[in-house]
Amino acid sequence: MTGRLIGVGVGPGAADLLTLRAARAISGAAVIAYPTLAGAASFARRIVADLMPEGCEEIVMDLPMTRDRAPAQAVYDDGAARIAGVLEQGCDVVCLCEGDPLFYGSFMYLMARLRGRFAVEVVPGVTSVTACAAAARMPLVARDEGLVVVPGPVADDVLRARIDGAESVAIMKVGRHLGRIRAVIDAMGLTDRAVFVARASLPDQVVVPLAGAPDEAPYFSMILLTKGNDPWL
Amino acid sequence: MTGRLIGVGVGPGAADLLTLRAARAISGAAVIAYPTLAGAASFARRIVADLMPEGCEEIVMDLPMTRDRAPAQAVYDDGAARIAGVLEQGCDVVCLCEGDPLFYGSFMYLMARLRGRFAVEVVPGVTSVTACAAAARMPLVARDEGLVVVPGPVADDVLRARIDGAESVAIMKVGRHLGRIRAVIDAMGLTDRAVFVARASLPDQVVVPLAGAPDEAPYFSMILLTKGNDPWL
Repeated sequence: MTGRLIGVGVGPGAADLLTLRAARAISGAAVIAYPTLAGAASFARRIVADLMPEGCEEIVMDLPMTRDRAPAQAVYDDGAARIAGVLEQGCDVVCLCEGDPLFYGSFMYLMARLRGRFAVEVVPGVTSVTACAAAARMPLVARDEGLVVVPGPVADDVLRARIDGAESVAIMKVGRHLGRIRAVIDAMGLTDRAVFVARASLPDQVVVPLAGAPDEAPYFSMILLTKGNDPWL
Repeated sequence: MTGRLIGVGVGPGAADLLTLRAARAISGAAVIAYPTLAGAASFARRIVADLMPEGCEEIVMDLPMTRDRAPAQAVYDDGAARIAGVLEQGCDVVCLCEGDPLFYGSFMYLMARLRGRFAVEVVPGVTSVTACAAAARMPLVARDEGLVVVPGPVADDVLRARIDGAESVAIMKVGRHLGRIRAVIDAMGLTDRAVFVARASLPDQVVVPLAGAPDEAPYFSMILLTKGNDPWL
């Protein structure tokens, strides 16, 4: 009997926005895996630190700070090999992911490498999209409306097309792209329909109309925009 | 001091996919509100039944089975008035929502009616989108990919445009629209990229390739489609 590869979404940041299933998986884990970026502390690990069992083994995959894919792939190759070693001994491995494992989550890279040989389970989590909407108390979609989720780094023409293509839009990973994204939304005449949210659910959460957003945005920030004409009334 | 209107997402269906915060809000609630449809039992209430305190007051809003908006609006008007009566006495009201309160959730209709007079809190929940992806172990989006969420009842040309507009697509509330949606996806040559998921996270969950979907789909069913070329590898 080999162990199970378990991808666990830990939600947007607040420790009590974990699901009951995620909390149980983590508090009962013998081995916990997660990525870090260029040696920085893991945000996912920080969210669940109080739940991790004393003395549990940690498998850390340290990713380099580059958009080039080969170095990251090598890190995931190595991480998957180490995880496979544990699974082969019959022990489960819990992989932590901010938000949800299959929604821009690092878990996908491990699952792709290991799903042919081991049983995989996924514990879905609260994504930053609904956490930001909750922070802003902003309805996302109702009835037959559509929602598009798009990462901030895409080119301006892609961003415009995506905003055109749905009643509501969540622009993820805003970070250093804030000024450029804001210019696109301004040019479309939609600035007064947009809010900026940073670090949703954390004590230093920021929620402001886009027009009042700070000049510098953290990586974990989002713009929510809805063109709906108060259709929920 | 008036009470708080608290919208609580109860997740996709499994009782342990509630967040810790949602579980605490419900188990400590004196008054719990939720909608029903044409007298049928509430799915949201069923999910959390074991957590509801003995003897807590329940405010039920029974919606008529029609796409006409006026009758539903009258029900929400009446429900909001009953909830306001409780809030004015200084007591909080917890409103249950399947999935997430601001993502196709009935809570938006109550929030729109009460936010001017009372404090509002929203506890985000796991949506059916990530729950279905977890059930299918299907990566949704990675890196700069976009995701579009669209309800199944939209017209064929809208559906085609939405599918064209993103790498991954979640088609919600498939139900009786399954045949029509399948024809659209077939005509676009994307059937082998799509999975059908019904009742995600429940004991009678169904996950099959779209080509093998049953002829009749329940309201709570979804099609997930990704055009990505295994970009997560």
